[in-house]
Amino acid sequence: MLKVAVVGASGYTGVELLRILHGHPEVGVTCVTSEQSAGKRISDIFPSLRGRYDQALENLEPVRVAEKADLIFTALPHKAAMEVVPTFLKLKKRVVDLSADYRLQDAGEYEKWYEPHMSPALLKKAVYGIPELRREKVAGAALVANPGCYPTSIVLGLAPLLRKKLLDPATIIADSKSGVSGAGRSAKVDNLYCEVNDGFKAYGVGGVHRHIPEIEQELSLLAGEKLTISFTPHLVPMDRGILSTIYARPVKKVTVEQLVSLYSEFYHGEAFVRVLPLGQFPSTSFVRGSNFCDIGLTVDQRTGRVIVVSAIDNLVKGASGQAVQNMNVMYGFPENLGLEGLALFP
Amino acid sequence: MLKVAVVGASGYTGVELLRILHGHPEVGVTCVTSEQSAGKRISDIFPSLRGRYDQALENLEPVRVAEKADLIFTALPHKAAMEVVPTFLKLKKRVVDLSADYRLQDAGEYEKWYEPHMSPALLKKAVYGIPELRREKVAGAALVANPGCYPTSIVLGLAPLLRKKLLDPATIIADSKSGVSGAGRSAKVDNLYCEVNDGFKAYGVGGVHRHIPEIEQELSLLAGEKLTISFTPHLVPMDRGILSTIYARPVKKVTVEQLVSLYSEFYHGEAFVRVLPLGQFPSTSFVRGSNFCDIGLTVDQRTGRVIVVSAIDNLVKGASGQAVQNMNVMYGFPENLGLEGLALFP
Amino acid sequence: MLKVAVVGASGYTGVELLRILHGHPEVGVTCVTSEQSAGKRISDIFPSLRGRYDQALENLEPVRVAEKADLIFTALPHKAAMEVVPTFLKLKKRVVDLSADYRLQDAGEYEKWYEPHMSPALLKKAVYGIPELRREKVAGAALVANPGCYPTSIVLGLAPLLRKKLLDPATIIADSKSGVSGAGRSAKVDNLYCEVNDGFKAYGVGGVHRHIPEIEQELSLLAGEKLTISFTPHLVPMDRGILSTIYARPVKKVTVEQLVSLYSEFYHGEAFVRVLPLGQFPSTSFVRGSNFCDIGLTVDQRTGRVIVVSAIDNLVKGASGQAVQNMNVMYGFPENLGLEGLALFP
Amino acid sequence: MLKVAVVGASGYTGVELLRILHGHPEVGVTCVTSEQSAGKRISDIFPSLRGRYDQALENLEPVRVAEKADLIFTALPHKAAMEVVPTFLKLKKRVVDLSADYRLQDAGEYEKWYEPHMSPALLKKAVYGIPELRREKVAGAALVANPGCYPTSIVLGLAPLLRKKLLDPATIIADSKSGVSGAGRSAKVDNLYCEVNDGFKAYGVGGVHRHIPEIEQELSLLAGEKLTISFTPHLVPMDRGILSTIYARPVKKVTVEQLVSLYSEFYHGEAFVRVLPLGQFPSTSFVRGSNFCDIGLTVDQRTGRVIVVSAIDNLVKGASGQAVQNMNVMYGFPENLGLEGLALFP
Repeated sequence: MLKVAVVGASGYTGVELLRILHGHPEVGVTCVTSEQSAGKRISDIFPSLRGRYDQALENLEPVRVAEKADLIFTALPHKAAMEVVPTFLKLKKRVVDLSADYRLQDAGEYEKWYEPHMSPALLKKAVYGIPELRREKVAGAALVANPGCYPTSIVLGLAPLLRKKLLDPATIIADSKSGVSGAGRSAKVDNLYCEVNDGFKAYGVGGVHRHIPEIEQELSLLAGEKLTISFTPHLVPMDRGILSTIYARPVKKVTVEQLVSLYSEFYHGEAFVRVLPLGQFPSTSFVRGSNFCDIGLTVDQRTGRVIVVSAIDNLVKGASGQAVQNMNVMYGFPENLGLEGLALFP
Repeated sequence: MLKVAVVGASGYTGVELLRILHGHPEVGVTCVTSEQSAGKRISDIFPSLRGRYDQALENLEPVRVAEKADLIFTALPHKAAMEVVPTFLKLKKRVVDLSADYRLQDAGEYEKWYEPHMSPALLKKAVYGIPELRREKVAGAALVANPGCYPTSIVLGLAPLLRKKLLDPATIIADSKSGVSGAGRSAKVDNLYCEVNDGFKAYGVGGVHRHIPEIEQELSLLAGEKLTISFTPHLVPMDRGILSTIYARPVKKVTVEQLVSLYSEFYHGEAFVRVLPLGQFPSTSFVRGSNFCDIGLTVDQRTGRVIVVSAIDNLVKGASGQAVQNMNVMYGFPENLGLEGLALFP
Repeated sequence: MLKVAVVGASGYTGVELLRILHGHPEVGVTCVTSEQSAGKRISDIFPSLRGRYDQALENLEPVRVAEKADLIFTALPHKAAMEVVPTFLKLKKRVVDLSADYRLQDAGEYEKWYEPHMSPALLKKAVYGIPELRREKVAGAALVANPGCYPTSIVLGLAPLLRKKLLDPATIIADSKSGVSGAGRSAKVDNLYCEVNDGFKAYGVGGVHRHIPEIEQELSLLAGEKLTISFTPHLVPMDRGILSTIYARPVKKVTVEQLVSLYSEFYHGEAFVRVLPLGQFPSTSFVRGSNFCDIGLTVDQRTGRVIVVSAIDNLVKGASGQAVQNMNVMYGFPENLGLEGLALFP
Repeated sequence: MLKVAVVGASGYTGVELLRILHGHPEVGVTCVTSEQSAGKRISDIFPSLRGRYDQALENLEPVRVAEKADLIFTALPHKAAMEVVPTFLKLKKRVVDLSADYRLQDAGEYEKWYEPHMSPALLKKAVYGIPELRREKVAGAALVANPGCYPTSIVLGLAPLLRKKLLDPATIIADSKSGVSGAGRSAKVDNLYCEVNDGFKAYGVGGVHRHIPEIEQELSLLAGEKLTISFTPHLVPMDRGILSTIYARPVKKVTVEQLVSLYSEFYHGEAFVRVLPLGQFPSTSFVRGSNFCDIGLTVDQRTGRVIVVSAIDNLVKGASGQAVQNMNVMYGFPENLGLEGLALFP
């Protein structure tokens, strides 16, 4: 049995990791940490876990954590992650990092969007963990940078078209919408129920959201050339889910049928990407709580634009589920082990 | 592998059965029926199932269904169930019926609250399936009447106190609140999003809800005497969940500590009933999607009343999860098999 | 034109006062204060007000506020109110206080549920402002204690029966449900969107909520004898609204028809209490944003209990709307002036 | 006092008209009709109206309606409107039609997107009623075609840029999101609470939504040339509100400051369009229940695209509020009369 630690267990990605790992037959959770709630039982923070995870939350002392676990999930805010990940690696532990700290290959980009990087040398070793696109590298990685939620929805949504060089790279617009859990569990007026409920807004408008460099890095790799996109995130009054509506001009005329078969082929055999039949489009409702990415495709006959709509659960395929999927790849478990839970609908 | 059929698969309890059974290692779903959507793929009705359940929905022809399955879950409206259940039994199939048709032992009561019963003889054979209270009878039953959602929350909430004869039976008031999925999936103006969202109301006020005879039957059996309760259901703007706040006068003074230890003992070893520590009370959020019943207890020092608060997911412990739990008992599977999914929070 | 100040304008009752007063033809808002946001425009805090209220928020300096206004609404937390109200009164200003500080007549009760009172002498002068029950006293008051939201729903719900001494006072149970805005606008994890959405819970279970002494004070006055109730508040995933389901035993048999006519008579001519026709029950949806209190009535034939269901908008009739209604009474304006807004449905 | 009729009063735009008109001092509602609910009191359909509108709903007999009213609001589905509007006009009544029937100038376009038009001659006489753009024509119109909700948000959002010919007309993409009330009040499974709640989806993807010809007609008039857009509507789990995120390439470099001042000038003096300060973007929460259109502006420095975000309440500025605004213009009332209600927040 693989011993794993969940570092940062009192946030939403932390509790989601525990929920998923409870159904994984090859894993035991040997350590959970939380700076804010150390000493308390994890089930007093999240009563959903009562009777199944009742252990006490520990302070984050990297050496002690490393003694208890072989694989460490770091579900920390950016910066907090890079303060401990190097220690874990030095102690020969493997890490799946859910923060943004090891997603960008270029330390300069990281500094531009975040702050100076504390362990830039690790950026070259980290593997950006979208198993559908980089399975072999994930398998051998010591450090997997688990992708952001918005990037996952957009990168999976565009990969087939970009690999085939079918899009004009200057025309990509991704209009994305997220549930509120993406904002985390810290106490801010902006995320109070009454501030969010029954309303809808854009935020980070104008190309300023920190997921942009990550999205462009991955899309550029797929396209084989540097590209720039317009990306606008929005806040939906719901707990979970991301839906991205992506617009781009094809370099040559393409039909919907061609799109659907291109995508179906590209993702053939993938356990977690569902290319929807012609005329169907995804809803976050149908991936809620599951590790699926659902993709719907069309061509706007009047303007010639390709439109891709992709949906994921931001806490599962956009975070903790993909982290477990990466773990499965790293340890040679069946990739869907513990991840077969279907969406909770309604 | 046990072959099961889900009759009435296009409703919310139907899709929930399929979601749960997908994680059950000993079961194969060999037949799904729907009168409204026969011929369509179940995954076109519920895209959450795509890639895992893509079979076509069939018309409900009892003999054909019985040929395909050993155990049949009937997730039908009342009356529709009793039109087919006798056939299944005659063909030596076992049935877990999620409708109200076999829950009342007395055909006269059924007629009073519903309509004339079509197979009154079966009422004596049917076992009202709350495994925590009637495990042995369920194990041997050919026909299990799966309890209603409100009754499950109230009966589990009061069982220890009633068995011990600690309550004045004339003083019980159950004020219950349910999510909207309890109203089913039929197209009615009353259940439209805009009619329900951001509002709260009582319905069936004044002792007229059809779950009352079922609740009183079970509470009376526990108390060893016929009792009558006040029960008011309410509609909460959420998908799932029932929370019942239950008031009663004890026959003698009782402390909170005594209550908690009485309940902890009564439910000791139960996989799905969690008696909360002193001072904690349940939320439907922490049972959403899971088979748990969470129970919180207190005594109002100022009035002497005992207050029990119980919470379940109406589609899981209140319907499909309890149905699978009953199935596990009937077939000797571990009672929690396929039912270990923790609540989706947030 | 009456000059009014809104002290504590950056909370939910503050912005609701401004929303309502914008439609009041006899009033000008000459001063808005906020400790947290002094110096900012109120419309930068609440963009709903942009173009109509763009003035800057001031620090709360009581003498300066009193110079600018004749009537002061104090929309502050308890304790903060009693730190400034005496100054306002000394300066011959009239006050409608939306906090709990002047609602209890007995300083000892205040201390028991809150803390030592700083101006106990004012408790005798303050008028508990439910205009439907105490219109003349409100008219002449210098200090009106604006009732709490839960108490408003319960007191209006029981007044006719208690005045007529038709209830056994030992049998009253009020099971109340509130929207989230009742918890205020401070940044707490418990009130985050994801903690509340799609869930339902009880809180303050067991007779410990601070509205209890206020409810019992008013009910006792109505009944002409000291009484004690069971009261359980619950949190509903919606912005606004309180619905109270109230159970009690009548001292003699009573029919629904008698109840409806008793209430219709008692509230005859009232602008804001709507006694629903026989068989109808209220929903918070139909009072959302309005100053109405809707009341539905029945008798449980099986148990003999009377059931009253009352609904208000906690921010309007339960706070800011009732405050403006009190102002109208105090200044001889038509009682419904500025308060005729119908519920926003859907 | 102006006598008005609301034809189709049992839908959401109907009840919203009544809510708004209740606060209008110059108007009396003399007739309300509903095919489905004729004979019932309007307050039994919408209890929010109780005590203020208790009149009976009538069948829609155009001649009788015309006898009772001078101005008729037709809040009917498309086709149903054009079956009665010609009669009202023949009887010298003025009409504000909230359906789609008279919005397109070209009967061929109407037939292409809807069906053959029954009174094409009226299309030339009808005035597309966005008062901000066409105030004088509305003032003199006998028939005002009240704009659709999506078109209102997009046309007001782009008008200043298009009038100034600052955009490349081939690059416009409008990604719009709507609350559920836009789908109307008919009983469909798709609009049930549990189908919509806590989820998000696109619909009408690929340039097939019927609001497209209307949007393009108005944008083309503003631009002075025929243009084509990409438009994708989405469904947000909230009752009310539309937010449109609009992307386009400017024909020459433009700064955010220039945008804000262009818009501020263009909408100077308008009662209901609020151009937000630099760096602020709208939320539907802050227009909920009000007649405002809030507009936020930016330029994506990295891609050079202009991004406009506009928000309205689909039932107010997107339907009934704009209808009353048009009425005010038609009858020479102050344009904001009865429309000063601020957003209900929270």
